[in-house]
Amino acid sequence: MYVSKAAPKTQVECDYDGPAMKTQVPGPRSQELTKQLGEIQNVGAVNFFCNYNESRGNYLVDVDGNRMLDLYTQISSIPLGYNHPALIKLMAHPDNLSTIVNRPALGILPPGNFPEKLMESLLSVAPSGMTRVQTMACGSCSNENAYKAMFIWYRNKERGHNTPSAEDLSSCMVNQGPGCPDLSILSFMGGFHGRTLGCLATTHSKAIHKVDVPSLDWPIAPFPKLKYPLEEFARENAQEEARCLEEAEDQIVKWRHKGKPVAGIVIEPIQAEGGDNHASPEFFKSLRNIARKHGCAFHVDEVQTGGGCTGKFWAHEHWGMDDPGDIVSFSKKLLTGGFYHKNELQPYRIFNTWMGDPSKNLFLTEVLNVIRTENLLEEVTRSGKALLNGLYELQTQYPGILSRARGQGTFCAIDVCDDATRTSIILKARNKGVVLGGCGDRSIRFRPALVFKEYHVHLFLNIFNDVLAQHK
Amino acid sequence: MYVSKAAPKTQVECDYDGPAMKTQVPGPRSQELTKQLGEIQNVGAVNFFCNYNESRGNYLVDVDGNRMLDLYTQISSIPLGYNHPALIKLMAHPDNLSTIVNRPALGILPPGNFPEKLMESLLSVAPSGMTRVQTMACGSCSNENAYKAMFIWYRNKERGHNTPSAEDLSSCMVNQGPGCPDLSILSFMGGFHGRTLGCLATTHSKAIHKVDVPSLDWPIAPFPKLKYPLEEFARENAQEEARCLEEAEDQIVKWRHKGKPVAGIVIEPIQAEGGDNHASPEFFKSLRNIARKHGCAFHVDEVQTGGGCTGKFWAHEHWGMDDPGDIVSFSKKLLTGGFYHKNELQPYRIFNTWMGDPSKNLFLTEVLNVIRTENLLEEVTRSGKALLNGLYELQTQYPGILSRARGQGTFCAIDVCDDATRTSIILKARNKGVVLGGCGDRSIRFRPALVFKEYHVHLFLNIFNDVLAQHK
Repeated sequence: MYVSKAAPKTQVECDYDGPAMKTQVPGPRSQELTKQLGEIQNVGAVNFFCNYNESRGNYLVDVDGNRMLDLYTQISSIPLGYNHPALIKLMAHPDNLSTIVNRPALGILPPGNFPEKLMESLLSVAPSGMTRVQTMACGSCSNENAYKAMFIWYRNKERGHNTPSAEDLSSCMVNQGPGCPDLSILSFMGGFHGRTLGCLATTHSKAIHKVDVPSLDWPIAPFPKLKYPLEEFARENAQEEARCLEEAEDQIVKWRHKGKPVAGIVIEPIQAEGGDNHASPEFFKSLRNIARKHGCAFHVDEVQTGGGCTGKFWAHEHWGMDDPGDIVSFSKKLLTGGFYHKNELQPYRIFNTWMGDPSKNLFLTEVLNVIRTENLLEEVTRSGKALLNGLYELQTQYPGILSRARGQGTFCAIDVCDDATRTSIILKARNKGVVLGGCGDRSIRFRPALVFKEYHVHLFLNIFNDVLAQHK
Repeated sequence: MYVSKAAPKTQVECDYDGPAMKTQVPGPRSQELTKQLGEIQNVGAVNFFCNYNESRGNYLVDVDGNRMLDLYTQISSIPLGYNHPALIKLMAHPDNLSTIVNRPALGILPPGNFPEKLMESLLSVAPSGMTRVQTMACGSCSNENAYKAMFIWYRNKERGHNTPSAEDLSSCMVNQGPGCPDLSILSFMGGFHGRTLGCLATTHSKAIHKVDVPSLDWPIAPFPKLKYPLEEFARENAQEEARCLEEAEDQIVKWRHKGKPVAGIVIEPIQAEGGDNHASPEFFKSLRNIARKHGCAFHVDEVQTGGGCTGKFWAHEHWGMDDPGDIVSFSKKLLTGGFYHKNELQPYRIFNTWMGDPSKNLFLTEVLNVIRTENLLEEVTRSGKALLNGLYELQTQYPGILSRARGQGTFCAIDVCDDATRTSIILKARNKGVVLGGCGDRSIRFRPALVFKEYHVHLFLNIFNDVLAQHK
């Protein structure tokens, strides 16, 4: 039986010692609250209710007093764990009160410190080749507006950078061409880019996200289905990637002939919601070249991969490219939504009331400071190695249950033999004090905070091993 | 020459005495910051930079030390003015720190006080006939998801409330029918419902919002073009409304025959962005009946009209209906986005990472307390009457410049002879210490906070009169 090597406990400021369970989860108080909330809204997806006051570091505390090691972190959106002292301290500063209390319409009346705060926060981690950024309120709005920026850019090119014609302006008012052009975005099977109508037309991870909602006739290419560990299947994987690239290029040509040219390609560096599907740097480099060759913008969606969890701040940095994309969108761990873009993609005419929320930029500045001063990217790389090695060992020990362990940094996943077993494992782990989430058809995804240390990895692996032993 | 009657100064907690100007606006510091921000993002729409720390009540202070009476309030999104003491106090409470610092994934792991906070805030002002609410991060996401709820509801009806078929599930993955059905939303010319792709297909206020972005072939009906004051043109206006209703019904029939049935109708109680266009309660009652007759859901978009500025909490309350709609969406002054819905429109499958932001619900609870304890809806009605009467007087005095004064509560507007004159008036007013905004082709819209008293109305009218006198 696997027993994980114990790592020395690394101090995380304001963390607990380990999980501590008082009831099954959801406990009686959570069940009562679920019933109450059910009177007001749909609770089909609610897991349990949380006590965020008592949660600390890597530990999520629920309303029944259960304390769980959190490897899901609010669908990968908590960068430094719960109640990080640096963020609590930031709220005490009187200057910050007014930023939180008075939410401005950023596009017309930004606060005086807005350029400085953008420089300190988002611009300080700008992807290679990008010096401009537009904030937005959430991930879906970020992608929706990024698509619009690509459409506008493409049409500007088409009309030789002249202003829209009178016919453009009149026809668009009634949703017709040429003002509303038949342009498309190329996306990939298994991709997830959000659930508003534009985003949803590029999302292909689960039918339940899409069914009953009208969509757009846009091209969809296959995403490589690779074998793991990647290094052991290099030749086969390269063939699979070549097949997908060829298909992507075919789709671009086909849709141009259909009269619905591809204005942009959108892709995740690792397909997350769709099942943690990886592809090689060579794949992304080739795809970037295909985009260039056909005059399409290249949009890298880092909503889930961005923020340091892969061991680099952006997952696309693993590609080693100076010019990774024309647009990089973000949200979740960045606390604010938004997108970086090349100069050529001026998001002129990208506008809404709030255009983000400067109070989130304030917190992001502090999060980035902590990432730097505590060398959290190195820590993530170290914890991620321990986690992936542990998963490799466990899949060797439980070959009937686990397979395809994979990951970059702590952004790891493993496949379970079937969906029912996956659900059972996730629920049993929760009752033993570990919060996990699923993705794809039968994967478990690991999305701990950046303060998840080797110590926590081994704590988790031991509990996970206990759960698996029960399933053997 | 018009000289407004002086009203006794009504105390607004933490307000200033009046405007105080030091420079032209934008002043040198704003211009410098605009240049700086221009290096990072598009600044085409930036008016000036603000000092939110120094802003108080109805007064917005800029970075050059100019203090302006604000009748635009961040595009109508600041309910109680700037730095309201009740909101500042709320931030000092230690329990609230963790709500602001730890943003949960509300759909899966809500905080323990979430049902209670929803009851205290959103449910305490639920529209008639609605007991359920879903929060969202912004106005566009609210409408996008409301549309999805209507599509899902409509398809559920069509298939007799059975689960989607295997063909539904497979076809939707590639954006095709029957899984992605050819359903539509009926909207109105001049309407504004947001700028993401789904919302934008129902937005028809300005070409510049829509041009270059692909759209959907959805029906659009004319919105009544009424004559003001409404009571003087009752017969003509009723005819115009009848024409529009007939056209709306025709469109519903036509799109059904085209194979793109109308799942829902979306409409604003007062078209705001499109030029402050009003319609009578009878118009909305008849439209609601048309929706019922044709099996379409009825979505009232209160993103701009909601929150008390019409003198009632929701503008649709002026219709006097027990059953005003199936969905009511909101954002802006409500601080959080979201939508109320009838039980039948279960927003099952409506999901994203954040699903709103409970820290905004916290502030909303306090905003609603202040509205109640300070009787702000009555105050708005009183201030609104003074404002509209003042506008009537001014349009009599300046018939070559002003016309069509109209409004409900302080949600007022007036037309200017042409767009250039409008711009000039807005800029001159700003330099005299009054912030105004435009809407439609040549209207000025007034959107003060709920703490805008009669005293402020007369202060404004006197300054506005000075500006108009210069244009005469």
